[in-house]
Amino acid sequence: MGANNISVVSSLFVFSIMFLSISSALHTAGTRRKQYTPCKNMVVFFHDIVYNGENAGNATAAIVAAPQGSNLTILAPQNHFGNIVVFDDPVTLDNNLQSEAVGRAQGFYLYDRKNTFTAWLGFSFVFNSTYHKGTINLAGADPALNKTRDISVIGGTGDFFMHRGIATLMTDAVEGDVYFRLRVDINFYECW
Amino acid sequence: MGANNISVVSSLFVFSIMFLSISSALHTAGTRRKQYTPCKNMVVFFHDIVYNGENAGNATAAIVAAPQGSNLTILAPQNHFGNIVVFDDPVTLDNNLQSEAVGRAQGFYLYDRKNTFTAWLGFSFVFNSTYHKGTINLAGADPALNKTRDISVIGGTGDFFMHRGIATLMTDAVEGDVYFRLRVDINFYECW
Amino acid sequence: MGANNISVVSSLFVFSIMFLSISSALHTAGTRRKQYTPCKNMVVFFHDIVYNGENAGNATAAIVAAPQGSNLTILAPQNHFGNIVVFDDPVTLDNNLQSEAVGRAQGFYLYDRKNTFTAWLGFSFVFNSTYHKGTINLAGADPALNKTRDISVIGGTGDFFMHRGIATLMTDAVEGDVYFRLRVDINFYECW
Repeated sequence: MGANNISVVSSLFVFSIMFLSISSALHTAGTRRKQYTPCKNMVVFFHDIVYNGENAGNATAAIVAAPQGSNLTILAPQNHFGNIVVFDDPVTLDNNLQSEAVGRAQGFYLYDRKNTFTAWLGFSFVFNSTYHKGTINLAGADPALNKTRDISVIGGTGDFFMHRGIATLMTDAVEGDVYFRLRVDINFYECW
Repeated sequence: MGANNISVVSSLFVFSIMFLSISSALHTAGTRRKQYTPCKNMVVFFHDIVYNGENAGNATAAIVAAPQGSNLTILAPQNHFGNIVVFDDPVTLDNNLQSEAVGRAQGFYLYDRKNTFTAWLGFSFVFNSTYHKGTINLAGADPALNKTRDISVIGGTGDFFMHRGIATLMTDAVEGDVYFRLRVDINFYECW
Repeated sequence: MGANNISVVSSLFVFSIMFLSISSALHTAGTRRKQYTPCKNMVVFFHDIVYNGENAGNATAAIVAAPQGSNLTILAPQNHFGNIVVFDDPVTLDNNLQSEAVGRAQGFYLYDRKNTFTAWLGFSFVFNSTYHKGTINLAGADPALNKTRDISVIGGTGDFFMHRGIATLMTDAVEGDVYFRLRVDINFYECW
C-alpha cells in the first residue's frame, strides 16, 4: 500500500494545485462581473441652454411642465420644484460649448425638492459619429448641489449593447438660470 | 498493476468529491445570479401628500402636467388620466408619517389609464443617513388597485452599487386625493 | 516508483478530462450571459391614438405638457419639441388595431428635438392574459425617422422576472398627427 499512499499523496498535491487554479478561475469569473474596476470608461460634457422666452435660436432645453402658479419661461420658485425640462443638448469631449459635438444628450429632468436643488433625470446619450455609434440610457437622482452625484446606466445599444454602470455627474459651470454644463464620468461595470 | 488500480480508484474517489464540490461551487455561482431567493431585502414606507392649492406647507408632491381642460390643483377626471405628479416624499421604516425619515423617495408618477387607476413610476430612493448611503433607482407600471404591484429596480449607487431587483408596492393607506402611503418590499437579486 | 508514475500519469489524464469539462462549463456559463443570441424573443405591435380635442372616445394618448405658446390638443411646432404624451395603448400580436389586445403599453414619450422627430420613451408592456402575465419595462431614445431604433429593456416582472434586453422599434404606420403604430421586436439577452 506504500506505493498507493505515495500515489494518493501525489494525486492530492496535483489536486490541490488544480483546485487552486479552478478556484482562481471561478474567482476571476466572479470578479469579472462584480469587480469595482470598470470594464470601460469615458468622460463627456453636455451643455444645457434653457429657453427663457428670448433665446429660441440657441436654446437646447425647454420647461414644459410647472406647478400651479408658475409659467414656462421662468424656472419655478422653491428651487424650481415641479418643473419638468425636456432637453436635446450637445455632447462634447471637453468643456467647450464650441467644440464639435460627438453626440446628443436627450431626455428630461425634473426638479423635485422645495428646499434645495434636486433633480431626477431620465435621458440617453445618443452617438452617431466616428466617436461612437449607439446609445447609453440613464436614470437617477441628482442632488445638484453635491460635488459629485451618481446615477445609473440602465442599459445601452449599439457600441454599448446591454451595458450597465454608473455615471458620475459634476457641475462644471452654471450661468444664471439659462446655461449649465455637466461633466459626466461614465464607468461601465457590465460591458458584454 | 493492482497498486495502480487501487490508486486510480482512490484518485477517482477523490476526484468525485472534488467534482461534487466544484459542481456545487459552479451551481452556487449560477444560483447566486439566477436564484429567486433575494441576496438582500428591505421594507420601507413612503408618504405622498399632493398639493391641492391649500396645503403648500406640508405638501410633498405637486401635479405639474394635466390633459387639456384639467388644472394643477385637482387631479383630473377619468381616473386622473394624463396627470404627472412630481414628488419628494419622506421614507420611513414603519407606517407612521411622524416617524423619523431615513431617506426620500424622489421622482415622478403619471396616471396613464382612463378606465381605472394605473400609474407609471420613475423615481429613486435616496438615502444619506446611518440607515444607508446611496440610491435605488426604480421604474415600472403600477396598476394601483391591485393588492401588490411589482416594478423593477433598474440600478443603484453607493450601498446599492449596481444592484437590480424587484420592488413590490402595496397601498398602505389612502386619504382622499391628498394623501397616500405605500409599503415597498424591495428584493435585490443582483447585489454585487 | 514505476507504479506511482503510471498512477500519476493516469491521474493527470483524468484531471485533464475533468479540467476540460470544467473549463467548458465555465465557458458555457460565460457564454450564456454574454451571447448575442437572445434567450427569448417576441414581436408585438402597439397602437397610439393621440387626443386632438375631438376623439375623446377612442383616444389612447394625451398631450399633457408642452412648451410655452403651445396647447394640449395640437402637437407643438418644431417637430413637437417639448411635448410630453401619456399613453395607454392596446398591444396586439399583428398589425391590426381591431385584433384582440394581449396587453397594454403604458407610460410616456416626449419629443426632444427641434430640427427632426426624436422622442424619448419610458413605458411598460403590461400583460395579464393567457399570452403572458407580467411586465416588461423599457426606456430609451427613439429617433423616430430611422427605420429601426433600439431601446433598452431595463427590467421585468412576472413571466419576465429580472429580464434585460433590447427592443427594436419600427414605425409600421402613421396617420397624420393622430395615429401611429409601432412594431416592436423584443430580444431578451438576460432571461433568468
